[in-house]
Amino acid sequence: MRRILFVLPGQEELGASLQSLGSFEQGVLELRHFPDGESYVRVDSEVRGAQVLILCQLHHPDDKILPLLLLVGTLRDLGAHSIGLVAPYLAYMRQDKRFHAGEGISARYFARLLSQQFDWLLTVDPHLHRIHALSEVYSMPALALTAVEPIAQWLRSQVQRPLIIGPDGESEQWARKVATAAGCPCEVLTKERFGDREVKVSLPHVTEYLDRTPVLVDDIISTGRTMQQAAAHLRASGMSAPVCIGVHGIFAPGAREEMEAAGLRVVTSNSISDPSNRIDLAPLLMLGLHQLLK
Amino acid sequence: MRRILFVLPGQEELGASLQSLGSFEQGVLELRHFPDGESYVRVDSEVRGAQVLILCQLHHPDDKILPLLLLVGTLRDLGAHSIGLVAPYLAYMRQDKRFHAGEGISARYFARLLSQQFDWLLTVDPHLHRIHALSEVYSMPALALTAVEPIAQWLRSQVQRPLIIGPDGESEQWARKVATAAGCPCEVLTKERFGDREVKVSLPHVTEYLDRTPVLVDDIISTGRTMQQAAAHLRASGMSAPVCIGVHGIFAPGAREEMEAAGLRVVTSNSISDPSNRIDLAPLLMLGLHQLLK
Repeated sequence: MRRILFVLPGQEELGASLQSLGSFEQGVLELRHFPDGESYVRVDSEVRGAQVLILCQLHHPDDKILPLLLLVGTLRDLGAHSIGLVAPYLAYMRQDKRFHAGEGISARYFARLLSQQFDWLLTVDPHLHRIHALSEVYSMPALALTAVEPIAQWLRSQVQRPLIIGPDGESEQWARKVATAAGCPCEVLTKERFGDREVKVSLPHVTEYLDRTPVLVDDIISTGRTMQQAAAHLRASGMSAPVCIGVHGIFAPGAREEMEAAGLRVVTSNSISDPSNRIDLAPLLMLGLHQLLK
Repeated sequence: MRRILFVLPGQEELGASLQSLGSFEQGVLELRHFPDGESYVRVDSEVRGAQVLILCQLHHPDDKILPLLLLVGTLRDLGAHSIGLVAPYLAYMRQDKRFHAGEGISARYFARLLSQQFDWLLTVDPHLHRIHALSEVYSMPALALTAVEPIAQWLRSQVQRPLIIGPDGESEQWARKVATAAGCPCEVLTKERFGDREVKVSLPHVTEYLDRTPVLVDDIISTGRTMQQAAAHLRASGMSAPVCIGVHGIFAPGAREEMEAAGLRVVTSNSISDPSNRIDLAPLLMLGLHQLLK
């Protein structure tokens, strides 16, 4: 069966990397806005009977979803056999319970919306915290890969004697797995959160590793505060400036620049296109696609 | 049964007008963005068992839809009895057929999306052209009211001896009905379209009405080009600067200001909040709500 890959704006590099590894036809697409702000969608590939893959960045999702859903509608109208979503960063996983009365559990509603539209989902390291598996909220086949091995590969080739450090309790799952895969020790800091932006980091026990290169590992870097505070703490403990690895570099405006100005080396995967991308997810995604596109 | 009206940002004036006419409880809502651009939704009203109405502007829809759908998910989780959408301007009605191969028929996909989420829809003068009734594309009860009578009322009180002019063939349906309701004559210009923004207006036969105030009537004012070119043509025929009435003032950036700088008097309904709003749709919407909320 023909397989056609459509790459939405912003994912051109990862798209080209996937294209070079797989045997996909390249989907051709016109996406623009009318003067009234509505989206225009035109598919310039013959999709009838084909397995269609859409590669789409889902950070800052609110203005991306409707054009994406209109594209899905168009592809179905044009007779696509199936439509899968390759979203290396999966949005709306963090609002995963009702923390205060009346709050929406957006992770569930977002999952329901996508499940109504797509035939399958492929993603990397979704923020699974209180939701333990995508199948709890996604009713379509949803495969979550982990970037642990690509990160460990990068570490083995780029960092001498790393000490992996999880900057907080939630990051522990990534940090320990990366340390195991890279064959190096691991420590985890603990943090308390005050509101959306304020974070305080408690004492670690890392003074026994002063000869190692500290490597902070987390799934998401957003404001960068967690990483910055962890780095400040490591320095106060006599360690050098850490390498900061995030699977997903969401980066609030200026966040990466601020981290780099503070002497941190920032490294991300290309789940979200950014100058800090060093870890190519394409080989990992191909493993997942082989499972999904049998 | 309790009836609760939630007013989304931008519709505060129409919302207050509706509130003053109806016996709705005022829904209290927290809508904001996380630093990563995702939406946060919290409902601060007891909605269990209540009929919920959401009043929402749908122009420039792409970044409004996901927060709206997350709000619907939240209200359902909290036990709302039913959820209706009051969208005085209904977006995505203009891409109503496949004009070129591969194009999406967005009107249909958008209708399907809303129909999956809401229990009913109330709107005013949707752009019905090749789609003749909302029921062709909306699978939920969808009531389309017309602003003909509110416009005619405004004309009777504000304009001496009006001549209603439809600026193009598509506007004819509005123009003739408004003229009939206001008891005045009507003419319709015809136009040709070149791309999204270029428009050429052909000759009208209006010289016999030189003692009347020309009133251009259309459902939507977007770039304002159609109105401007019609106005230029009327002036070339010896008529005075027209009043320009649009049910829905979408207005591309600077469009209204440009029209006013050209001497046109621009008048819209409050389906979309704008300084040109002169025609309050609240009494009309109440008529529709009495039908839908039996």
